[in-house]
Amino acid sequence: MSKLRVAIIGAGPSGLAQLRAFQSAAQNGEEIPEIVCFEKQDDWGGLWNYTWRTGLDENGEPVHCSMYRYLWSNGPKEGLEFADYSFEEHFGKQIASYPPRAVLMDYIEGRVKKANVRDWIRFNSAIRWVEYNEDASNFTITVHDHATDSTYKEDFDHVICASGHFSTPNVPFYEGFDTFNGRVLHAHDFRDAREFAGKDILVMGSSYSAEDIGSQCWKYGAKSITSCYRSAPMGFKWPDNWEEKPALEKVDGNTAFFSDGTQKEIDSIILCTGYKHYFNFLPDDLRLKTANRLASADLYKGVVYAHNPKMFYLGMQDQWFTFNMFDAQAWWVRDAIMGKLDIPASKDALLADVKEREEREEASDDVKYAIKYQAEYVKELVAETDYPSFDIDGACQAFFEWKGHKAEDIMAFRNNSYTSVITGTLAPVHHTPWKDALDDSLESYLQN
Amino acid sequence: MSKLRVAIIGAGPSGLAQLRAFQSAAQNGEEIPEIVCFEKQDDWGGLWNYTWRTGLDENGEPVHCSMYRYLWSNGPKEGLEFADYSFEEHFGKQIASYPPRAVLMDYIEGRVKKANVRDWIRFNSAIRWVEYNEDASNFTITVHDHATDSTYKEDFDHVICASGHFSTPNVPFYEGFDTFNGRVLHAHDFRDAREFAGKDILVMGSSYSAEDIGSQCWKYGAKSITSCYRSAPMGFKWPDNWEEKPALEKVDGNTAFFSDGTQKEIDSIILCTGYKHYFNFLPDDLRLKTANRLASADLYKGVVYAHNPKMFYLGMQDQWFTFNMFDAQAWWVRDAIMGKLDIPASKDALLADVKEREEREEASDDVKYAIKYQAEYVKELVAETDYPSFDIDGACQAFFEWKGHKAEDIMAFRNNSYTSVITGTLAPVHHTPWKDALDDSLESYLQN
Ligand SMILES: Cc1cc2nc3c(=O)[nH]c(=O)nc-3n(C[C@H](O)[C@H](O)[C@H](O)COP(=O)(O)OP(=O)(O)OC[C@H]3O[C@@H](n4cnc5c(N)ncnc54)[C@H](O)[C@@H]3O)c2cc1C
Ligand SMILES: Cc1cc2nc3c(=O)[nH]c(=O)nc-3n(C[C@H](O)[C@H](O)[C@H](O)COP(=O)(O)OP(=O)(O)OC[C@H]3O[C@@H](n4cnc5c(N)ncnc54)[C@H](O)[C@@H]3O)c2cc1C
Ligand SMILES: NC(=O)c1ccc[n+]([C@@H]2O[C@H](COP(=O)([O-])OP(=O)(O)OC[C@H]3O[C@@H](n4cnc5c(N)ncnc54)[C@H](OP(=O)(O)O)[C@@H]3O)[C@@H](O)[C@H]2O)c1
Ligand SMILES: NC(=O)c1ccc[n+]([C@@H]2O[C@H](COP(=O)([O-])OP(=O)(O)OC[C@H]3O[C@@H](n4cnc5c(N)ncnc54)[C@H](OP(=O)(O)O)[C@@H]3O)[C@@H](O)[C@H]2O)c1
Repeated sequence: MSKLRVAIIGAGPSGLAQLRAFQSAAQNGEEIPEIVCFEKQDDWGGLWNYTWRTGLDENGEPVHCSMYRYLWSNGPKEGLEFADYSFEEHFGKQIASYPPRAVLMDYIEGRVKKANVRDWIRFNSAIRWVEYNEDASNFTITVHDHATDSTYKEDFDHVICASGHFSTPNVPFYEGFDTFNGRVLHAHDFRDAREFAGKDILVMGSSYSAEDIGSQCWKYGAKSITSCYRSAPMGFKWPDNWEEKPALEKVDGNTAFFSDGTQKEIDSIILCTGYKHYFNFLPDDLRLKTANRLASADLYKGVVYAHNPKMFYLGMQDQWFTFNMFDAQAWWVRDAIMGKLDIPASKDALLADVKEREEREEASDDVKYAIKYQAEYVKELVAETDYPSFDIDGACQAFFEWKGHKAEDIMAFRNNSYTSVITGTLAPVHHTPWKDALDDSLESYLQN
Repeated sequence: MSKLRVAIIGAGPSGLAQLRAFQSAAQNGEEIPEIVCFEKQDDWGGLWNYTWRTGLDENGEPVHCSMYRYLWSNGPKEGLEFADYSFEEHFGKQIASYPPRAVLMDYIEGRVKKANVRDWIRFNSAIRWVEYNEDASNFTITVHDHATDSTYKEDFDHVICASGHFSTPNVPFYEGFDTFNGRVLHAHDFRDAREFAGKDILVMGSSYSAEDIGSQCWKYGAKSITSCYRSAPMGFKWPDNWEEKPALEKVDGNTAFFSDGTQKEIDSIILCTGYKHYFNFLPDDLRLKTANRLASADLYKGVVYAHNPKMFYLGMQDQWFTFNMFDAQAWWVRDAIMGKLDIPASKDALLADVKEREEREEASDDVKYAIKYQAEYVKELVAETDYPSFDIDGACQAFFEWKGHKAEDIMAFRNNSYTSVITGTLAPVHHTPWKDALDDSLESYLQN
């Protein structure tokens, strides 16, 4: 029998975890399938691969990057550390707990450089369409190779979709947006906070993007920040020039009107209204449709597409755990493809697993419960593979402390440090408080 | 034999011209094929269908619109009037010569409402992929219907691609763009000039977008405009706060450096660097690859795809003539599909026609020559169909006068008026000079 062929869509943290998972099996002397990873950008790293571009990229593809300048990790790095490649191994020392984007990108790259898997990736290669062939029980993938501006097809036995779900913005319309005399943008297109220095900005939403983009604009000199929520306020102790309001009703000229009857003159509107799971390369029978939640719809074990178990998805959950969860998933998917783990043959069984996960998620809306829920999921997958086991409860502890630090002082939580569950070392406190650290380069960050 | 099935991709001015062409034949009692027009937006009008959105739209599709608020026609309407539907028929009177976007949108809609072809269009329907089946000599089209979030396939005998070529931006990188502390945007994402009031802006490029976006920013209160060119200056008599510079070399912080050794502090960079022909739904054997020029590559008679003459393209040329040229093309394509016009069987003959057009275009780079060249093309097509013949030389005359008016006063050329070649009426002079007309609504414009 000829070798199995596996296609991975995307070389972000999830796709790279999958490459490392297969490479690790090969390193252990196992016979692995032929792997081809397709990446539409010209480099790896996914969202962490920063670009100044917005809208469409140099190849006419939607810009994938939703990150922006001066972005620092919003959770402690102790919650995401790779179990097989510690921060200390990569940097030669322990580093502070909330690394800026460039530092985390360097870390992500370090492991896959060491694994020597770059050749498995075809860059500048956008997946245009995927189709399942009932007769041959395989997939035909159509690819646009931007390097040669040509399209081609190739067949694979398995497809692993790791294309991310924080790149297609959810952009609601509110009355007056079409005649507002300033910039209206989604967080996905936010790039440099200095553009908003001296301005009165309105930030819509009450989740991570709203909190972090508002905080950045504050740090880099916005005149005032007004944030507004649809369901519940973020409720932090905001600086004096930050006001949190209930829902936006409309804008008229440059005036924003809120549901409590108040109004505010604003220069720009930043929609931090989340993202959509979006797969413009997948037909109905392969396309995941899910909300952004911990128990994704239709994914057995959170990774196997119940309607076609030869198709897998990585990282499609809402994320407390990130890199280490992607690893757990990738190791599990690897072993399922290599026949070391069984996937139930009955679709009912697959969907029953999904249902059980959904019900368990819905049992509480407490934040600690949610963190533990995802921790249990990571534990479950790790236990079934040879991914190095690590102290997942310890990682939860870092998340709980982080939550407390945010409640204490939202503009200072990044000045704290935590203990690595991989190496046991306490991280140093960063040399400069976050609000004063205007230079977020790797060189500056590593000067501890 | 069952009816021929024809797919039209796009319901902009070109696609709508095609619908009107077929409807006009049906009105004359001819038996026409079954027509399905696929439009990814939720309304017709193409670029003229304004949206405040940028980047990705509410369906996650790249925003098609490249138009912006306060946009007025950049050429006289007397150069684009439909021969079968005059401005006087639509508005009940003659109107001034440089209508704002909303007025032209109303006019475009008027004809197709009268023709009653809206039901032929499937809105919210993005073409994902098109494939030619050698065996069946037909095309399979894959469509994503956003209304139901589902994909499906359908077969057609002919495909007419009218998806436009001014929506995928050409976005060059210059040193320093990635660390510039302000907004860097392409003209495609420009929406409201008031965002730039009080600012020093840099406009890159020396063609229509550079001229018009710079002019708008000037009109709506930019502090200064600096435009820069790669090949040749626009060379108009600019207002005092507008300076034209040679090529940009780099930016550093907020300073722009030019090839003449000068520099300028700027707040924003607007890249008016043109667009790409871009068809992310077409495989190599059907995909047009051409520069933005009058003699498109690979199109026999400017419309028949030489490598597969069952496939047609509309409006793919650079444009002096627009609506009336799309009409001439649409009538011609209709007659070719209906067997009233012959397409040579030999590919060599098709490509020889292309070559002849290219050589004739390249024979001179004089602007008047170019306008006449495209006029001859329109004449050629009109002569071969029953599209109402009209005084195309007269339309050229309007273009020549327009060029003169621009050279006289770039901020006042829109205050002139010209004579319709369809109804023979001289347009009124608009009630307010362009630079003072801040209200560009249809209601305001029609108050002559
Ligand atoms: C603004 C922002 C900040 C964040 N900050 C943090 C943080 O501080 N810490 C943290 O742990 N997590 C953070 N995250 C969460 C983030 O989801 C993960 O860190 C991680 O990037 C997810 O990895 P992924 O590989 O699943 O997806 P992505 O990183 O999105 O990578 C997907 C890859 O697929 C490619 N792709 C997509 N479509 C195609 C196609 N059609 N053909 C070929 N390739 C394709 C893309 O180009 C991309 O490279 C943040 C997310 C956002 C939006
Ligand atoms: C900024 C700007 C200003 C202009 N001003 C003028 C002017 O003043 N006067 C003038 O005469 N011309 C002007 N033009 C020229 C313009 O090209 C034409 O007026 C006209 O819009 C071209 O019509 P079209 O139908 O060929 O393309 P478009 O107007 O671009 O329409 C194409 C249609 O195809 C649809 N489509 C694209 N991809 C898909 C898909 N995959 N599936 C389904 N549908 C799809 C789009 O949604 C769109 O509706 C301007 C152009 C620009 C960019
Ligand atoms: N490293 C960093 O610092 C950083 C920064 C930003 C983002 N991130 C990551 O990026 C990911 C996405 O976060 P996100 O905040 O962009 O998305 P998100 O968590 O999905 O939150 C979306 C927000 O938008 C609101 N919203 C949605 N539709 C709305 C509408 N029509 N009107 C008003 N409000 C609406 C939601 O309100 P409801 O609650 O009412 O639904 C919610 O507050 C997360 O994984 C996060 O960790 C990280
Ligand atoms: N109604 C209106 O008022 C209006 C307004 C705007 C646009 N439009 C229409 O929109 C269409 C497109 O016009 P456009 O001006 O956007 O595009 P365009 O005519 O193709 O012009 C592109 C410009 O960008 C320059 N350029 C390209 N790449 C560059 C690079 N790497 N560095 C520097 N300069 C670069 C070109 O310079 P070179 O000359 O050196 O190649 C050229 O000046 C036209 O049909 C126009 O009529 C109409």
